[in-house]
Amino acid sequence: MLKIPDHQVAGHQAGDGKLGPLIDDSGRFCKPLQNDERGSREAAFYTSFSSNTKIPDQIRRYFPLFHGTQLLEASDGSGLHPHLILEDLVSTHVHPSVMDIKIGSRTWYPQASEEYIKKCLKKDREGTSLKLGFRISGLQAYESEESGFWKPAKKVVSSYDVEDVRSSLKRFVSSNPLADAKPDGSFASVVYGGSDGILAQLLELKAWFEDQTIYHFNSCSVLVMYEKAGAETGMSRAEVKLIDFAHVTDGEGVIDHNFLGGLCSLIKFVSEILVNLGD
Amino acid sequence: MLKIPDHQVAGHQAGDGKLGPLIDDSGRFCKPLQNDERGSREAAFYTSFSSNTKIPDQIRRYFPLFHGTQLLEASDGSGLHPHLILEDLVSTHVHPSVMDIKIGSRTWYPQASEEYIKKCLKKDREGTSLKLGFRISGLQAYESEESGFWKPAKKVVSSYDVEDVRSSLKRFVSSNPLADAKPDGSFASVVYGGSDGILAQLLELKAWFEDQTIYHFNSCSVLVMYEKAGAETGMSRAEVKLIDFAHVTDGEGVIDHNFLGGLCSLIKFVSEILVNLGD
Repeated sequence: MLKIPDHQVAGHQAGDGKLGPLIDDSGRFCKPLQNDERGSREAAFYTSFSSNTKIPDQIRRYFPLFHGTQLLEASDGSGLHPHLILEDLVSTHVHPSVMDIKIGSRTWYPQASEEYIKKCLKKDREGTSLKLGFRISGLQAYESEESGFWKPAKKVVSSYDVEDVRSSLKRFVSSNPLADAKPDGSFASVVYGGSDGILAQLLELKAWFEDQTIYHFNSCSVLVMYEKAGAETGMSRAEVKLIDFAHVTDGEGVIDHNFLGGLCSLIKFVSEILVNLGD
Repeated sequence: MLKIPDHQVAGHQAGDGKLGPLIDDSGRFCKPLQNDERGSREAAFYTSFSSNTKIPDQIRRYFPLFHGTQLLEASDGSGLHPHLILEDLVSTHVHPSVMDIKIGSRTWYPQASEEYIKKCLKKDREGTSLKLGFRISGLQAYESEESGFWKPAKKVVSSYDVEDVRSSLKRFVSSNPLADAKPDGSFASVVYGGSDGILAQLLELKAWFEDQTIYHFNSCSVLVMYEKAGAETGMSRAEVKLIDFAHVTDGEGVIDHNFLGGLCSLIKFVSEILVNLGD
């Protein structure tokens, strides 16, 4: 039985008769293929990536598992529609805290249409992408059974400036994300720090991006996740995943310097939260 | 006695009654301040940088020494004009091989005028900047007393594509740069490789750029230099310097992800030449 995901924080969403992703009970995330070249490009990426023997195993774990494409009833009631069958990244979580961070100071790429380039360039300049090398696309952070999640509206998140991003990254790992008070950053060391924390995972990805010239991950996101109950007992299940590959292009022998630069900027922000924990 | 430099490979040049840099016999490079904000910004950068105690000594050596500004007779005969008094980076070289590489897939920056942004964006897309994260602005490589330097015309260099950049980086460290034959890459290991070679220096700069949030080096160049006679005896005097600071802006607490991404791409190109030396 397919249903609308509870914990999606960005991207096209099903519901209200709209076309969007659906999940099933067995941990699968069914993402409708977009009708234009974005759909074919994302399917082509998953197909290429899943069979590419040059991808090291420790890097592969940062990508959702891919189970092919399948015709399924679309969420907008328009009938059968091809879907990518992916791993539902939060299926084993109870109250996932999730942040979607679109990486790159530039979300467009040379091969795109002039119209698309113009649209992206405007958005990159209006948001934090150009300044920071990344922007937050959406987030939710779990506080408690009573108060639920801190989940700022899309409109709020898209108007974040540099300091909003800095404080959101700290609020995201706080026990009191919904409070007006200064975020306490209680979970920063267990979620961001440590040998298997977010920072260590981002650094592992960075090392790969310094070397790989196979793909350019235009307009992709890093998804950062953890479970509050776990964080409280020191087992945060902090995870980084890469998602959204509708604009991936061939690397043509050049590293993805745009993604890498943005990733390094994110790494610096996360590091600073850890360094300043005593403040 | 001021004279026109022999080994400038890019940028405004004196001669033919034009305004450009001059050198003296004591190793000084006198760069006329541009009349607009570029001039004041470059002077402000040198002043700020030379007195900034947060710059580590091992990083400071990658920048030309700054001896203040001075009114000097301009090269275009227009009378006294303020000049930056800098270190002449090639004054102790006999036959310097020099490459000027403008770093960054984006040479513009948010604070610039719309007109300037448009002009830069066009140039970044036409050249290799957008694709590679850097472009070669000019170069010369010494071959011999008889044949002199390989010094492709500005027009030729500015039309380089990705493969031209790759082969120029190899030809630059070859004993036969002027030959039609495949460049031999004879000096690659001594110039690019080794514990004090170009690659090691670029990696040291990269580590600084991963951390520093003081300046954004928009439209700056990395100058790569060596001396052929030295390279033949294993003492290449390979040096990296950063130059051209007319568009440096305040980092505002964010790393220079645009410069860093391009620098990583250049590092990958140089590494690949070393890896493929056996081919």
